[in-house]
Amino acid sequence: MTEPQTHHPNPSGLKRVAVLTSGGDAPGMNAAIRAVVRTATHNGIEVVGVRRGFQGLHEGDMALIGPRDVANTIQRGGTILLTARSHTWRSPEGRAKGAQNLRDWQVDGLIVIGGDGSFHGAHYLQQEHGFPVIGVPGTIDNDLYGTDHTIGYFTAVETALDAVDKLRDTGASHERIFVIEVMGRHAGHIALEVAVAGGAEEVFIPEDAKPVDGVVEIVKQSLAKGKASSIIIVAEGYPGGAEGVSKAIHEGTGQETRVSILGHIQRGGTPVSSDRVLASRLGEAAVYALMDGKSDVMVGRQGGGISHIPLHETWEKKKDVNRDLYRCAKTLSV
Amino acid sequence: MTEPQTHHPNPSGLKRVAVLTSGGDAPGMNAAIRAVVRTATHNGIEVVGVRRGFQGLHEGDMALIGPRDVANTIQRGGTILLTARSHTWRSPEGRAKGAQNLRDWQVDGLIVIGGDGSFHGAHYLQQEHGFPVIGVPGTIDNDLYGTDHTIGYFTAVETALDAVDKLRDTGASHERIFVIEVMGRHAGHIALEVAVAGGAEEVFIPEDAKPVDGVVEIVKQSLAKGKASSIIIVAEGYPGGAEGVSKAIHEGTGQETRVSILGHIQRGGTPVSSDRVLASRLGEAAVYALMDGKSDVMVGRQGGGISHIPLHETWEKKKDVNRDLYRCAKTLSV
Amino acid sequence: MTEPQTHHPNPSGLKRVAVLTSGGDAPGMNAAIRAVVRTATHNGIEVVGVRRGFQGLHEGDMALIGPRDVANTIQRGGTILLTARSHTWRSPEGRAKGAQNLRDWQVDGLIVIGGDGSFHGAHYLQQEHGFPVIGVPGTIDNDLYGTDHTIGYFTAVETALDAVDKLRDTGASHERIFVIEVMGRHAGHIALEVAVAGGAEEVFIPEDAKPVDGVVEIVKQSLAKGKASSIIIVAEGYPGGAEGVSKAIHEGTGQETRVSILGHIQRGGTPVSSDRVLASRLGEAAVYALMDGKSDVMVGRQGGGISHIPLHETWEKKKDVNRDLYRCAKTLSV
Amino acid sequence: MTEPQTHHPNPSGLKRVAVLTSGGDAPGMNAAIRAVVRTATHNGIEVVGVRRGFQGLHEGDMALIGPRDVANTIQRGGTILLTARSHTWRSPEGRAKGAQNLRDWQVDGLIVIGGDGSFHGAHYLQQEHGFPVIGVPGTIDNDLYGTDHTIGYFTAVETALDAVDKLRDTGASHERIFVIEVMGRHAGHIALEVAVAGGAEEVFIPEDAKPVDGVVEIVKQSLAKGKASSIIIVAEGYPGGAEGVSKAIHEGTGQETRVSILGHIQRGGTPVSSDRVLASRLGEAAVYALMDGKSDVMVGRQGGGISHIPLHETWEKKKDVNRDLYRCAKTLSV
Repeated sequence: MTEPQTHHPNPSGLKRVAVLTSGGDAPGMNAAIRAVVRTATHNGIEVVGVRRGFQGLHEGDMALIGPRDVANTIQRGGTILLTARSHTWRSPEGRAKGAQNLRDWQVDGLIVIGGDGSFHGAHYLQQEHGFPVIGVPGTIDNDLYGTDHTIGYFTAVETALDAVDKLRDTGASHERIFVIEVMGRHAGHIALEVAVAGGAEEVFIPEDAKPVDGVVEIVKQSLAKGKASSIIIVAEGYPGGAEGVSKAIHEGTGQETRVSILGHIQRGGTPVSSDRVLASRLGEAAVYALMDGKSDVMVGRQGGGISHIPLHETWEKKKDVNRDLYRCAKTLSV
Repeated sequence: MTEPQTHHPNPSGLKRVAVLTSGGDAPGMNAAIRAVVRTATHNGIEVVGVRRGFQGLHEGDMALIGPRDVANTIQRGGTILLTARSHTWRSPEGRAKGAQNLRDWQVDGLIVIGGDGSFHGAHYLQQEHGFPVIGVPGTIDNDLYGTDHTIGYFTAVETALDAVDKLRDTGASHERIFVIEVMGRHAGHIALEVAVAGGAEEVFIPEDAKPVDGVVEIVKQSLAKGKASSIIIVAEGYPGGAEGVSKAIHEGTGQETRVSILGHIQRGGTPVSSDRVLASRLGEAAVYALMDGKSDVMVGRQGGGISHIPLHETWEKKKDVNRDLYRCAKTLSV
Repeated sequence: MTEPQTHHPNPSGLKRVAVLTSGGDAPGMNAAIRAVVRTATHNGIEVVGVRRGFQGLHEGDMALIGPRDVANTIQRGGTILLTARSHTWRSPEGRAKGAQNLRDWQVDGLIVIGGDGSFHGAHYLQQEHGFPVIGVPGTIDNDLYGTDHTIGYFTAVETALDAVDKLRDTGASHERIFVIEVMGRHAGHIALEVAVAGGAEEVFIPEDAKPVDGVVEIVKQSLAKGKASSIIIVAEGYPGGAEGVSKAIHEGTGQETRVSILGHIQRGGTPVSSDRVLASRLGEAAVYALMDGKSDVMVGRQGGGISHIPLHETWEKKKDVNRDLYRCAKTLSV
Repeated sequence: MTEPQTHHPNPSGLKRVAVLTSGGDAPGMNAAIRAVVRTATHNGIEVVGVRRGFQGLHEGDMALIGPRDVANTIQRGGTILLTARSHTWRSPEGRAKGAQNLRDWQVDGLIVIGGDGSFHGAHYLQQEHGFPVIGVPGTIDNDLYGTDHTIGYFTAVETALDAVDKLRDTGASHERIFVIEVMGRHAGHIALEVAVAGGAEEVFIPEDAKPVDGVVEIVKQSLAKGKASSIIIVAEGYPGGAEGVSKAIHEGTGQETRVSILGHIQRGGTPVSSDRVLASRLGEAAVYALMDGKSDVMVGRQGGGISHIPLHETWEKKKDVNRDLYRCAKTLSV
């Protein structure tokens, strides 16, 4: 095995890229920014950092950044480029202004780190102005088609799991039922993983149509099995959420439960290794994609390799939850 | 310096003690149970573990436990003896039954690990049946007079602080205001410590009568100083809680805020060192107190030494928050 | 989407399985044991737990275990079944004794959680006595062919990364070079992942033949780039280890370095979610494999699906490190 | 209770202070710097930050810093001002140059955050040049007379304890003895606290003259009690260290042990709440002390209040370990 080749061919003649983070922040976004900056620099390409997402792109809030600017950021939560939800970007005029700013800065391509809302924004820029854009999946929800995981997902799972472990201490000591709501927007990925890893008795996800009433039977069985305490995980996208499940249990069994809605802590914190590595790989891949002349695609990771998925597919195609994991959650709650 | 003397004189002729945990669970309770069991054993005294607090004492749910039963428990959250809130203990008949169970088991003294509700239960047992009782302060709220800190407080602070650090990542990335509610029942100890350690811009505690409207001015000043994001800590005992503070900010400044109510995660988790050490010292001191013939007192730690405070004083006298810390919180939010 | 089917067909008529952990312990082994116990129970199969690995199998140190015995263990490091390195198992006589014990206990199949040494032991049992055996990859080193990851690897990486983050604090404050040795036996998987996630300036793995002298040039370049501090990761399997690399730097550049050998802490701790989920999936798959009549194979996870690899291939075939990751480590240390 | 008074009288007419960190870095140093900057600013006083300790003071590596410069630093390990060990400062000429730099920058007083070596440096500056200096105890070793705790101690204990918890997982699974060496220079504070909190079977500290041979008897007793695994804590200042203890055990009992030397990870990491609060209080107190006209003293915390101890006493007087804790460690290892 020899030293790896780290210089990538540059047939598109890329000289300067811009990078921004948009939408909800996710742990690992800084690692992705760092990877973009360092990969570009290593290949002789300059990088412009855009602050506050598309809003900053519209306003021209941008500056050149170099490898030292991203030193000591790989372990930090949040995003050093800041993020925002932009209203002006929703209008063609707003996007035209942003396109002009990119041209004024002599930028040859834009890398957008974010979720499906952010990818829409990038897609329109490409469609309306022919500007090369690459999407990097950065969201804790893991709800983008075309990549096994999204940046931030692993850390969000770990944070939620840590909370579940803590609540189990109290649940077991008091012989109580805890109904815990985790994030994930319209998807049950976080809920499912946390349910298996947290040894939950039951999990409710938006992808399964089962009625909340069913939980009554489960709780009764659980009590009958001699389980004095229970952990029930509910995805925020499940109709009624944790409060609804709690109410159903109370009405059906008379059992009191404690509801815990984990909320925004799931977005923050030092990214775990899996998110840092994923972000590093995808940040590198995003620069390579622009160098290769690609545009209007998301770089993702599938089965260990890098995928390039048309941006519109990332939100049009449905990413299913892992059904094997769902079965596993059921089996192991015996 | 010579090897320390670890055998304590036993003028009261103590032969067998019982121990229970009661009320809300707190990290470090297992370390306290372990210390009671090992100190007693080391001094030739047997230990009866009572399960589910006073409810279990009433029902006779108890068993002998030895040093090996508490091996590998010092790092565990919750309580291996379980805890419960007992209705039967509120009646003299309920307590008489419990006293009889203790006598049937030939127990010479009872150690109760819990908060002020639990200490009331212990006090009545002593008053009505002359049964020797010792209280060990185990509650995350730190609201008991006569001890600098209570078991569980340090871990709860650390858990809340970890959440604040995570929320700051998101707050800073989105330039948002976070209003975070921490536990503490009627007291502001946790809130104050978390505010200083978390670098909060403002803190609201029940001990200070300041109106919530004042926060409006503070937020305006903060924005004027160029602070794009803010962390505001609210004790659950402050009138209106985090929701009230958030509403006041919105009405007074038009600024949107995010509310995060940390909830029960603050009760769980592996106890931090300070809680394990405090629990170890107080568990040892509780056994020594019974051996010395003391009763109806709480063992606490004050300025490094062990205190013995009449149980009724622990709830009748008011423990103030640390005013120096309160000033410090203000000064450092400049 | 309907409720998943959790009952597996049982053409082999499996009635009772045994499970043991062997070799070095790894975080997530308890989650794997739990999954074996609960999957078997759910399918009407009994489980015998063997203590202290093959040594206990030889000695007949075994007992029936049920779903409640594994409650509240999924989050615990180490292995509740204990582990040991067995000398008696190396002889055919030792193994014959173990086979007899399994028959005496009416066991129909054995599940062995461990690394390649343990798989050798299982393989011989199958070869010499025709006893059905299934291997579950449990080792932090991730050095088994046929599975993308091994149980314990993710947690070991996270523990090592946490240490690297801490050392970087000191390294940056003192403008020092830290040379950090991580585990991995003869493989560089942990080192590579930690290097990328930890933002290391350089990484040395046994899979690459590059001479340690090369580091001198790298350190000189790093200093020239204005990097005041550096993190260098060395796999324990790299010739000379961290001490050798440190010595080479000192001799070549005159720069002093600090060496940190992380050691056994990498084996312990609460397993992270990825290890718990992997262990849950593989524990379930191991029981299914025996029910399906399979033997002498390891169950692994490849690209999201379950693989069944002949045991001898797991050690005969070479699992390469991720070369993309290796390149990425180089590129991002710009 | 009314709003606290946060403006401090300034009879000395202090207008500008300098602050530096020196010696080994400790978690919480940034919180102390932040407290100095914000307390000074709040009272209308300017702050000069000196980089790389006395070395930077000698070289004039300094700049004005304001409240925004220390935003978002309270949770960071290491020191943003960097630290170094200075050779030039050991000569009167070196110190004269530093004094001149301070006068050139119109600084009225210097705050030095560090351990006893750093306090020596500050003391000489006061003695030789009459320059007002205040020491802030920043060292993980907790070995300074005149303060109950030093900044960084609590975090170092927590980091070491986390490692002990992890090693116990492996120790228990393999039924092994772990001999773990923790930091503390010539003092046993960290070792003692970790031993109690970690439930160690034995602890060796420099303050106790007991011969290492004694451990043989202890290990034999431990084995006789049925303890299959053991944790033994050794302070780095104990003659022979962990290796010596391990050797003695092997020679005396034939038992093999695993040695783990935790090393520099104990210096890094996000500071725990207790360190951040202590640092905040002492940073504030240091500015107040200069405003009050004090000099050549260390600000410490004793029994909840602020102490002012002549610098030379901090190293001349001996701070004993907590003997109650030492006894407790013995009692609870029953």
